[in-house]
Amino acid sequence: MKISNDLQGMTLALEWAARGLYTTSPNPHIGCVIVRDGEVLGAGVTQQAGNDHAEIQALKDAQARGHDVRGATAYVTLEPCNHYGRTPPCSDALVRAGLGRVVAAMEDPNPLVAGQGMAKLAAAGIATSVGLLAGQAYELNIGFFSRMTRGLPWVRMKSAASLDGMTALHNGQSQWITGPEARADGHAWRARACAILTGIGTVKADDPQLNVRAVETPRQPRRIVVDSRLEIDLSAKVLQGGGTWIAAAQPDAEKQAALADLGAEVILLPNASGKVDLAELMRELGRRQINELHVEAGAKLNGSLIRAGCVDELLVYLAPTLLGDAQGMFALPALAQLSDQRRLKFHEVQQIGADLRILARFI
Amino acid sequence: MKISNDLQGMTLALEWAARGLYTTSPNPHIGCVIVRDGEVLGAGVTQQAGNDHAEIQALKDAQARGHDVRGATAYVTLEPCNHYGRTPPCSDALVRAGLGRVVAAMEDPNPLVAGQGMAKLAAAGIATSVGLLAGQAYELNIGFFSRMTRGLPWVRMKSAASLDGMTALHNGQSQWITGPEARADGHAWRARACAILTGIGTVKADDPQLNVRAVETPRQPRRIVVDSRLEIDLSAKVLQGGGTWIAAAQPDAEKQAALADLGAEVILLPNASGKVDLAELMRELGRRQINELHVEAGAKLNGSLIRAGCVDELLVYLAPTLLGDAQGMFALPALAQLSDQRRLKFHEVQQIGADLRILARFI
Repeated sequence: MKISNDLQGMTLALEWAARGLYTTSPNPHIGCVIVRDGEVLGAGVTQQAGNDHAEIQALKDAQARGHDVRGATAYVTLEPCNHYGRTPPCSDALVRAGLGRVVAAMEDPNPLVAGQGMAKLAAAGIATSVGLLAGQAYELNIGFFSRMTRGLPWVRMKSAASLDGMTALHNGQSQWITGPEARADGHAWRARACAILTGIGTVKADDPQLNVRAVETPRQPRRIVVDSRLEIDLSAKVLQGGGTWIAAAQPDAEKQAALADLGAEVILLPNASGKVDLAELMRELGRRQINELHVEAGAKLNGSLIRAGCVDELLVYLAPTLLGDAQGMFALPALAQLSDQRRLKFHEVQQIGADLRILARFI
Repeated sequence: MKISNDLQGMTLALEWAARGLYTTSPNPHIGCVIVRDGEVLGAGVTQQAGNDHAEIQALKDAQARGHDVRGATAYVTLEPCNHYGRTPPCSDALVRAGLGRVVAAMEDPNPLVAGQGMAKLAAAGIATSVGLLAGQAYELNIGFFSRMTRGLPWVRMKSAASLDGMTALHNGQSQWITGPEARADGHAWRARACAILTGIGTVKADDPQLNVRAVETPRQPRRIVVDSRLEIDLSAKVLQGGGTWIAAAQPDAEKQAALADLGAEVILLPNASGKVDLAELMRELGRRQINELHVEAGAKLNGSLIRAGCVDELLVYLAPTLLGDAQGMFALPALAQLSDQRRLKFHEVQQIGADLRILARFI
């Protein structure tokens, strides 16, 4: 592959970044490509936390292939880090390797970096530029940026409904409203999330596994259940394999011990009305390094999360069908006037199989 | 403008056809372009019923510009007619003019033509071909084709709703959920319809004018109100200017006389339960040469029309907002099982201003 301009270089770096979409959590998904005279000398993607960042991978790749990178250009989808975290600063490695130019898609929102990585490179005489394809780089790591800048995960709420907005019949039937392509696409969104959250209502009604099956992934997202009164049945599938977090409001030593035996952890976050404090739960998930949170819950919890202002984005699959009098997507109270509307912005619309996929963001 | 191949010729003919979108009713919207050596010699569009068809307009245009059309190619978006209707056969005129070749987008679905127009041209030694851009030609005249092949109008039901499928608050507030671009776009769909239909509920609640305002048009569609018990107030705006049809189920000599004084016509079409027989109304509108029927009604009449199988297409504007507990688009009863779903197919999706426009067709 020949790289004949910066746009092609950064596009390739973004492709490398996307290879980490299902795996690097809680690290961001970063790609790096090193190019000289149009030739790709090395390429890499951020590894899981504690292992190499993309730049180091790309340098090692170039070395392994016998290339001298002195004077070459590195395209990297995020500003190289300049601090000692779990790994040494990438900016130092790039300076040492003698790169001639570094093109970054974005500044690092991490307050420990925030422009200092690029500044160090410039101080070492390396030509730098920031901003090429920043929008794509941002979307790829929207959860990481959310956590770095707000201390909160990026919360994406998924729903699948008929064109008239219904998710299930009153008798509970909902399999299937959308088609197999939409369901597989939903699993791809699950796979990129750090965690999948549902409510005790859905666990009781559907007993979901809440894992990724329809797409291949070496990593399963963390599973989280909002269960104020710790009603979860110990045989629930969502507890199988351990690692599940249960957000609860009422302690129950015996149940907590039984859950701990299954490898589950109970997080007690009560609000004044004896329910889980959802806003506090989001802050806790931010502290626990959840970048993207994927919500698949029933209308009740969906409505509560929206009312608590916890949701950033709706991922709605609309099937070309009408269900009439049935169950809606979000249990939200009647508005007194239209000016009380919760407005969003359509971010992206695609046809997936016979269905529509709509991404809409709260504004 | 230089025409260098058939595709460009037919594309231009379709552009001419679209010029008649708001005016030719109940005639179809047909365009014709006559080309020789890449030069456009003449072009035309079907006029209102009783006046020139597109081919005649194009021949006259070429003549007026001093062009000899002998041996030229005519691109026409529908097979030239071969029968005496309100005007003489176009196929004869093309033969007389000495055209060398005729390219038609579609065969005429009118059983009086149905391939015979092209056959007559071929018999006269003119090279013919049918089918280029047939899909676009079909969409432009979907109502005309519906009436010709089924005796029914093409029924397009418009609704504007929030992403969770709500059209108005319980207190009736609905102005505005969608933005000004979507509302103007809705008027463009009204303008191309032969008639706009609503129900007495909407007339009572909103007193709509039911005309085209947001786009320019020299022709206003016919207005139709479904009003089983002739409850309409004589001061209703939908009666202003006359010409309104009222579909009713119960005769009322006095009210009918008063309505006639306002230029309105009452069409009595009762079913066994004392309501308007909606399926029969559609057949009557077909007989009355309504090609495209644009429905803008409330959830109740919408639901009744859908249940009666009268609706071909939904035109739904979805606003990026959530209204929660509110009024839905279509009053349809709960289903006993998912297999009773009314399936559609998404035909087209576009962003219009901040809103989505979804065209979905029943299958």
